[in-house]
Amino acid sequence: MNFSKLQQTFLELRSNRAFELFVVSIIIFSALVIGAKTYNISPAAIKLIEWLDLFITVVFLVEIVIRFLGEKKKRNFFKQGWNIFDTLIVVVSLIPIDNSEMALVGRLIRIFRVLRMISIIPELRLLLNSLVKAMPQLGYVVLLMFIIFYIYAAVGSTFFAHINTELWGDISISMLTLFRVMTFEDWTDVMYETMEVYAFSWIYFITFIFFTAFAFLNMVIGIIVQVLEEENAKERKARAKESGEITLEGLSEQMEELKELLKSKKTLE
Amino acid sequence: MNFSKLQQTFLELRSNRAFELFVVSIIIFSALVIGAKTYNISPAAIKLIEWLDLFITVVFLVEIVIRFLGEKKKRNFFKQGWNIFDTLIVVVSLIPIDNSEMALVGRLIRIFRVLRMISIIPELRLLLNSLVKAMPQLGYVVLLMFIIFYIYAAVGSTFFAHINTELWGDISISMLTLFRVMTFEDWTDVMYETMEVYAFSWIYFITFIFFTAFAFLNMVIGIIVQVLEEENAKERKARAKESGEITLEGLSEQMEELKELLKSKKTLE
Amino acid sequence: MNFSKLQQTFLELRSNRAFELFVVSIIIFSALVIGAKTYNISPAAIKLIEWLDLFITVVFLVEIVIRFLGEKKKRNFFKQGWNIFDTLIVVVSLIPIDNSEMALVGRLIRIFRVLRMISIIPELRLLLNSLVKAMPQLGYVVLLMFIIFYIYAAVGSTFFAHINTELWGDISISMLTLFRVMTFEDWTDVMYETMEVYAFSWIYFITFIFFTAFAFLNMVIGIIVQVLEEENAKERKARAKESGEITLEGLSEQMEELKELLKSKKTLE
Amino acid sequence: MNFSKLQQTFLELRSNRAFELFVVSIIIFSALVIGAKTYNISPAAIKLIEWLDLFITVVFLVEIVIRFLGEKKKRNFFKQGWNIFDTLIVVVSLIPIDNSEMALVGRLIRIFRVLRMISIIPELRLLLNSLVKAMPQLGYVVLLMFIIFYIYAAVGSTFFAHINTELWGDISISMLTLFRVMTFEDWTDVMYETMEVYAFSWIYFITFIFFTAFAFLNMVIGIIVQVLEEENAKERKARAKESGEITLEGLSEQMEELKELLKSKKTLE
Repeated sequence: MNFSKLQQTFLELRSNRAFELFVVSIIIFSALVIGAKTYNISPAAIKLIEWLDLFITVVFLVEIVIRFLGEKKKRNFFKQGWNIFDTLIVVVSLIPIDNSEMALVGRLIRIFRVLRMISIIPELRLLLNSLVKAMPQLGYVVLLMFIIFYIYAAVGSTFFAHINTELWGDISISMLTLFRVMTFEDWTDVMYETMEVYAFSWIYFITFIFFTAFAFLNMVIGIIVQVLEEENAKERKARAKESGEITLEGLSEQMEELKELLKSKKTLE
Repeated sequence: MNFSKLQQTFLELRSNRAFELFVVSIIIFSALVIGAKTYNISPAAIKLIEWLDLFITVVFLVEIVIRFLGEKKKRNFFKQGWNIFDTLIVVVSLIPIDNSEMALVGRLIRIFRVLRMISIIPELRLLLNSLVKAMPQLGYVVLLMFIIFYIYAAVGSTFFAHINTELWGDISISMLTLFRVMTFEDWTDVMYETMEVYAFSWIYFITFIFFTAFAFLNMVIGIIVQVLEEENAKERKARAKESGEITLEGLSEQMEELKELLKSKKTLE
Repeated sequence: MNFSKLQQTFLELRSNRAFELFVVSIIIFSALVIGAKTYNISPAAIKLIEWLDLFITVVFLVEIVIRFLGEKKKRNFFKQGWNIFDTLIVVVSLIPIDNSEMALVGRLIRIFRVLRMISIIPELRLLLNSLVKAMPQLGYVVLLMFIIFYIYAAVGSTFFAHINTELWGDISISMLTLFRVMTFEDWTDVMYETMEVYAFSWIYFITFIFFTAFAFLNMVIGIIVQVLEEENAKERKARAKESGEITLEGLSEQMEELKELLKSKKTLE
Repeated sequence: MNFSKLQQTFLELRSNRAFELFVVSIIIFSALVIGAKTYNISPAAIKLIEWLDLFITVVFLVEIVIRFLGEKKKRNFFKQGWNIFDTLIVVVSLIPIDNSEMALVGRLIRIFRVLRMISIIPELRLLLNSLVKAMPQLGYVVLLMFIIFYIYAAVGSTFFAHINTELWGDISISMLTLFRVMTFEDWTDVMYETMEVYAFSWIYFITFIFFTAFAFLNMVIGIIVQVLEEENAKERKARAKESGEITLEGLSEQMEELKELLKSKKTLE
């Protein structure tokens, strides 16, 4: 069988904007309508959406089967992360949901169905890729944040535990309270309470806000801007090479040609 | 008639800073004064502002008519988005507002009148242009956000629905509650309520905040910074070409000249 | 008199880090201690700080007088914005404050005294310069924001005025309410109130938050990043020229030399 | 003794990812488990974690001793900031904690133990380095912020003191209230209260929010982005030199070679 031709057809179908829009609309409507209990939608409309939803899953299934059959070494197919992801999504989406029993499992399957959007939209894959790339760097910032939180939580639970046990009872609870302070959620209520006992405790809260909400948030921004810039730089380089744009490498090659010309002239004379 | 000369006069009038300031002031005063019911302004002053407001619209109308007449192919005039936008604004602004009847339509027309500012200020058009350009990229981020929201809303409505039906009743309501959590608006009240039943539900909220408010917001920033940078890069390139600045392209051309020189020398000998 | 030498001495004194730190400390202590009524500070200490504060103002006065006398054309002195700023600050700071009468004027003078910090620290002047430069661009963003606010306020006051007159009474009040929504300050209370009458009014609030808090804030960031980058680019260029770093201009000059060499060779042969 | 070889072994151990993960896990578990009073953990598990925690400290101690003995000039060892930091952390971590007495000292020591993470993870050191580098620039922004806060606090305490003494009693308290307004924490409650007396006081609050929360926050972002970019630029330059990438410097050297070739040819002829 001519798998590569079939695969090409499906690739074209998937990268077709109109088809993409159709699939995304069906997935979103399906997710929202079935998820909501309170909307008054006629059973016929729900039935239609369920059938369209199933149709999409089947298209995805056929596409993956062809992609799998087209692969020469079957092992390599499952070495690519996105292939495993796509297969998993399709297989789980095919499990029938029966609303009467196992509501929990049914909901988990519904969640999986939404992830089909990532299978169809290449831009979402790019966004996820860049997020995954930023992860290790973000991990270290989270560690630094943990240290700042722990230090302030240790101090907080030592001094403020007798003022309000619910907020400063132990280090874990204090860390949750500090996360709340970091999001500016009613943080002045927390501060005014402690200021009645320790008048200078505002220093504790304001330095904490400075250290986390300001210094920290900016670091996160810095890291992600950096990752995005790297991605852009790569893309530009690739594009420059393709379109034959003038680069420093090109200039260097031109110089080498000049040198060769000069040298050859020398030997001619 | 010499339309291009008349058009030039109006272009100069519109790009005149003093006229621009005058028009913008009238539009803002007109919008605020007529909009507010409680300010004590003499009917004479309101009358004056209404007349000035009408005068501006007439100036705009005359300008557009001249622009239209000056166009050789009348069809091309309506192929440019901004021409349609300007014409629509002026036509709707000319509809008289009668306060006694159709308050709703009157208000919609008033809104349209504010948009005349975009017609007069070229910088606002640039801002809108860059927003429109960022739209497709933002669309994908909104889709990714929808997936994150849907997953958390599905989990939230499954586990927390019996705790508070108003907040977690179905998936749609849960998504609105999660949007509230993302804006940090009394999110701890929502969390403490669920923590009374599920002590570890803080993991649900904190991971959600991390995924959306942090990772996500930064992605948006990244995209817009990128769009702005691209705009700047274009402008710089255009400026560099105009001002004859040294570029890599220029260096490459200089090298080619050198090569030609060497080659010509070869033939001379 | 040798003004340039005296001026040089004062310039050295002002750029001396220890003196700068001394002056800034005195200004801050003076501002805080005299401003606070509740701290228990001995009258002697306050007297000392007041004297040190006066001493700094006198140093500033002498320095400005010398700078003025050293200027050849007295007119040019007042053409520079910072000279006028410095003179104004010093003159106003010399007005004696009598706490018993004219508390309002006394406080205004005290505010002026804090501005001496901008006179002594060159980095603060740079920050202010870049802010002033960003002003025109920010102005247009503020105008765009005004349009968005006005449109939503007009719609809001039309539909929600009968629900809560205090929040949606007229367009001006609605704009203040929308500013509150933009800062996420108890915005859900405002929304839930309107949702009881119009169930779909959440669309109004969420699109407004998207348009302003997201799209808008990012534009502001973009503009300021751009301004800062331009400043940096200028600095780098200046530095590169000074330190004789390799630039594209340098390369171009080297090529011209090569061309000259080739041409001269031609004539020799 | 062959210190450099031993030191090399420890350097390899410390840069081993598995060992790093092991150490970080133990430190975090140790910090959380001992810090929390409410978790039900068997005494045996706590004992195990305490022993593993002590083991890590001993490994750190041995490593530092070897590093110190390997240093030729013992004085230089303490000239490096990180050496002092590491030594301090290890020494304080070795002090035994007795929960029954001196709870305060015990908690301070526990805080110090968390800082061992900075000793083991080089990326955290980089983050801290960049923070320390941004400090002087941030210092000036904080000064500018102080001036803005002081001016608004002086005005606020003059006009609003009789409305609410707890919020506007003197300049210091007013500054704390303004910090609260800057974080958008129930700022409308503060504003509505003053608007009952001064109807136009919203101008005071909205200009303040514009000056601080917008202009200011963006400046902070700008500074940190700049610092991060400088760091990246340095790294790229270093990498480019190592990997022999084409740079402007390289092009310039190639040109010099060409010139030499031309000149040598001249003499040959």
